[in-house]
Amino acid sequence: MSATHSASDLAARFDLELRGDPAWRIEGVATLARAGAHQLAFLANPRYRNQLAATGAGLVVMRAEDAEGFSGNALIAKDPYAAFAKMSALFDVRPAVVPGVHAMAVVDPSAEVSPEASIGPFVSIGPRTRVDAGAMIGPGCVIGEDCVVGAGCELVANVSLVRRVRLGKRVLIHPGAVLGADGFGLAMDHGRWLKVPQLGGVVVGDDCEIGANTTIDRGALDDTVLEEDVRLDNQIQIGHNVRIGAHSAMAGCSAVAGSATIGRYCLIGGGAGILGHLDVCDRVVVTAMSLVTSSIREPGEYSSGTPLMDNRSWRKSAARFKQLDALARQAAARNKEPQ
Amino acid sequence: MSATHSASDLAARFDLELRGDPAWRIEGVATLARAGAHQLAFLANPRYRNQLAATGAGLVVMRAEDAEGFSGNALIAKDPYAAFAKMSALFDVRPAVVPGVHAMAVVDPSAEVSPEASIGPFVSIGPRTRVDAGAMIGPGCVIGEDCVVGAGCELVANVSLVRRVRLGKRVLIHPGAVLGADGFGLAMDHGRWLKVPQLGGVVVGDDCEIGANTTIDRGALDDTVLEEDVRLDNQIQIGHNVRIGAHSAMAGCSAVAGSATIGRYCLIGGGAGILGHLDVCDRVVVTAMSLVTSSIREPGEYSSGTPLMDNRSWRKSAARFKQLDALARQAAARNKEPQ
Amino acid sequence: MSATHSASDLAARFDLELRGDPAWRIEGVATLARAGAHQLAFLANPRYRNQLAATGAGLVVMRAEDAEGFSGNALIAKDPYAAFAKMSALFDVRPAVVPGVHAMAVVDPSAEVSPEASIGPFVSIGPRTRVDAGAMIGPGCVIGEDCVVGAGCELVANVSLVRRVRLGKRVLIHPGAVLGADGFGLAMDHGRWLKVPQLGGVVVGDDCEIGANTTIDRGALDDTVLEEDVRLDNQIQIGHNVRIGAHSAMAGCSAVAGSATIGRYCLIGGGAGILGHLDVCDRVVVTAMSLVTSSIREPGEYSSGTPLMDNRSWRKSAARFKQLDALARQAAARNKEPQ
Repeated sequence: MSATHSASDLAARFDLELRGDPAWRIEGVATLARAGAHQLAFLANPRYRNQLAATGAGLVVMRAEDAEGFSGNALIAKDPYAAFAKMSALFDVRPAVVPGVHAMAVVDPSAEVSPEASIGPFVSIGPRTRVDAGAMIGPGCVIGEDCVVGAGCELVANVSLVRRVRLGKRVLIHPGAVLGADGFGLAMDHGRWLKVPQLGGVVVGDDCEIGANTTIDRGALDDTVLEEDVRLDNQIQIGHNVRIGAHSAMAGCSAVAGSATIGRYCLIGGGAGILGHLDVCDRVVVTAMSLVTSSIREPGEYSSGTPLMDNRSWRKSAARFKQLDALARQAAARNKEPQ
Repeated sequence: MSATHSASDLAARFDLELRGDPAWRIEGVATLARAGAHQLAFLANPRYRNQLAATGAGLVVMRAEDAEGFSGNALIAKDPYAAFAKMSALFDVRPAVVPGVHAMAVVDPSAEVSPEASIGPFVSIGPRTRVDAGAMIGPGCVIGEDCVVGAGCELVANVSLVRRVRLGKRVLIHPGAVLGADGFGLAMDHGRWLKVPQLGGVVVGDDCEIGANTTIDRGALDDTVLEEDVRLDNQIQIGHNVRIGAHSAMAGCSAVAGSATIGRYCLIGGGAGILGHLDVCDRVVVTAMSLVTSSIREPGEYSSGTPLMDNRSWRKSAARFKQLDALARQAAARNKEPQ
Repeated sequence: MSATHSASDLAARFDLELRGDPAWRIEGVATLARAGAHQLAFLANPRYRNQLAATGAGLVVMRAEDAEGFSGNALIAKDPYAAFAKMSALFDVRPAVVPGVHAMAVVDPSAEVSPEASIGPFVSIGPRTRVDAGAMIGPGCVIGEDCVVGAGCELVANVSLVRRVRLGKRVLIHPGAVLGADGFGLAMDHGRWLKVPQLGGVVVGDDCEIGANTTIDRGALDDTVLEEDVRLDNQIQIGHNVRIGAHSAMAGCSAVAGSATIGRYCLIGGGAGILGHLDVCDRVVVTAMSLVTSSIREPGEYSSGTPLMDNRSWRKSAARFKQLDALARQAAARNKEPQ
């Protein structure tokens, strides 16, 4: 099942300079610390530079300056991490997708499933849904009505697309993700909640990735939208009518409330929250567990929260936080006093 | 599949005043910004008032004061959002529930399934569980032993009710939700964790809604309880033996730890946390990502956290937070000095 | 289905001192407040001591000092909670696991399933995966290729093990959990995200428990590892290449980013976050919703955040937080002034 490539083959294929034995055989990839004689490793983060001397790796991809004095086989790359990512894909051998619909899948007669798509066991596909060529729907996935699964999409397992979810091409969705559930729309009416019908859908652009157990609600009236190449980690919550710009990435457990708009090339840290009806412009970085409470109009890095402290010290600071306004007023008053 | 109603029909049915053409035909709903000639829109939030002049909507529901000078067709409502919610339900056409048990469902012989319930494919129903008339169990749902699914409930897809989960009437549960899993009960015993058996259940009142991938653990001894009309968004965690009062609503990613009690008509913001063994009284609002660490005995709005700042400024404030107690002590000492 | 034990039987079996009627019949367990004449209750937390006088419990396990003057039947234990946990397991009667593969399960021909394992309906088991004796795979679980499910494991329902997930013995996994999904590995390459293949696996030690909808990604190159007896509550996110030491426990909604290492006997509070590439030493407690942003090298309790306040007061403190550095500089300047 494993692939083998010579060092010169890798250099040629990825247009990298090779220093060392062109015929050296590479059969897999590993970390610098653990790689063996026929494995490829990489050095990108300077803090791992001290592992280079002792590495057992048969080939290391790194920057030219890091390769000075290295006696082993080296591939020289401007961005060794990206180069490694591309090369390691050669060694990620997956079973070929076998087209066809499993005998224990249920497909509505009005659905259109490409003969080149693969539908696994215990999959349910609803009315008027379309699954294009090369799509792979893994075991236990449930796809409701009026959905589109574009060419080359992969729904790994136990994914739910509720209704009106339209995926572009090559969208990868990890297990337990739920797209197209009702948005959280409620109106209080005579002391009881009234449910606001959620009549929109979800549109996901080409090359998006959706993490395990992430949820993306469908829109109330318009659609919830992810533009192309958006990358969502696990356990993320995207409210109804959110729009996320192309090439933005969100780390695990972050959340965006309804009708917020996130720009392109944004990076949202783990556990961060973005309130509803806000606009966040392009190229904004929000650090982990920060809360965005108003629109952000300038690119840059934003944060909230307090630093970690030992609990005893923290209790003292926390108690003083409550007194901050009084302390500041006293200070202001003193500053106005004659000295 | 779509419904059509005249403006006068809508006015009569929802007891609203119509200004404009009674025969005007409405075929759907949309936002003020996007609605077309045969769509109904609404104006509730004053910040969208400027969209009114240019709207293409064939009919707009709004307050009387907003309708002054509006030349299009208008329905007048005291609460336009609630009125719109009710009217838009007319246009949320869903396929009728087809009663019966799918050939690829597995029902324990001791379970009681109403002939008027609908059990989808790949559903498993355990011993002594009862499913009442009009209930709809979607594909991939797993219901364990000793559960009750009340009349008119809907479990959309891939929902798990582990055991001893009793749902009232018209409970709506979105995909991936898990009710009745073991509470997190552990005792440390000679350096190893000892699991505390979780012998209680989960009781969910009428008209509750449970979001996608939300989890509600069953009680250790007594039950975990949601009273009627509780509304939970996605990715919420409810610990064992929690009780949530009627008509309370919680936004996405919020969490309540074991044995806490939440009152009626509470609103818990997204990502907020409530520690265990606390009591929160009725009509409490907790803002997003706040942490409740002691009981709340007065209705009102509560918060914790710090405001979002650019990262450079935030680092300075965060560093000073660690010094807060020392700063306050110095200030106090100075205040005692002779001036 | 229920068990019955005499008071003396319980005393003998768990090596506890009995004060009271040895023949008293116990048929179940309950809280001190609700227990009836034939139920066992416990008193561990001093704040429930006032419930002792009025309890209807037929037998109470508690410390010797709490039993002074109690007129009912008592079992004396140094750790009443642990003793109760062990005794209540007697009353947690579960249906016996019936070995065999359900007719509506799909098992790859190259998988090895022990004849003493139980495989439920709508379960899919992939190539080269091994399921050992006494393992129980509940309805809707999906197990991919190259996995191991050790002896006595239980996957309750709708659990996904994607690939290369190796579980030790007696691992309990609650519904909706996803182990072995791709880690969140991305490299930016000419303005687009490049996916970094995730070639490692997940290794879970004996006696671990994984909560509902928790996600544990597989490693990029090496494995993600949970040592033995790690206990994870619901909705937890564990990034790729994380290592969690034996006997550590994490409460609901907490998260650990990629390549962080957590020591043994750590307690991570609900909603807490730990950034990537950090080391947390043994016996560290992190309080709820705190964020760990650098390595912790000393055992102890750590916190971040601010206390809950009424929203009006909080707004004032929050506004002052932004001015903290300026306030501190002014104070420093004043302290240098001649008095």
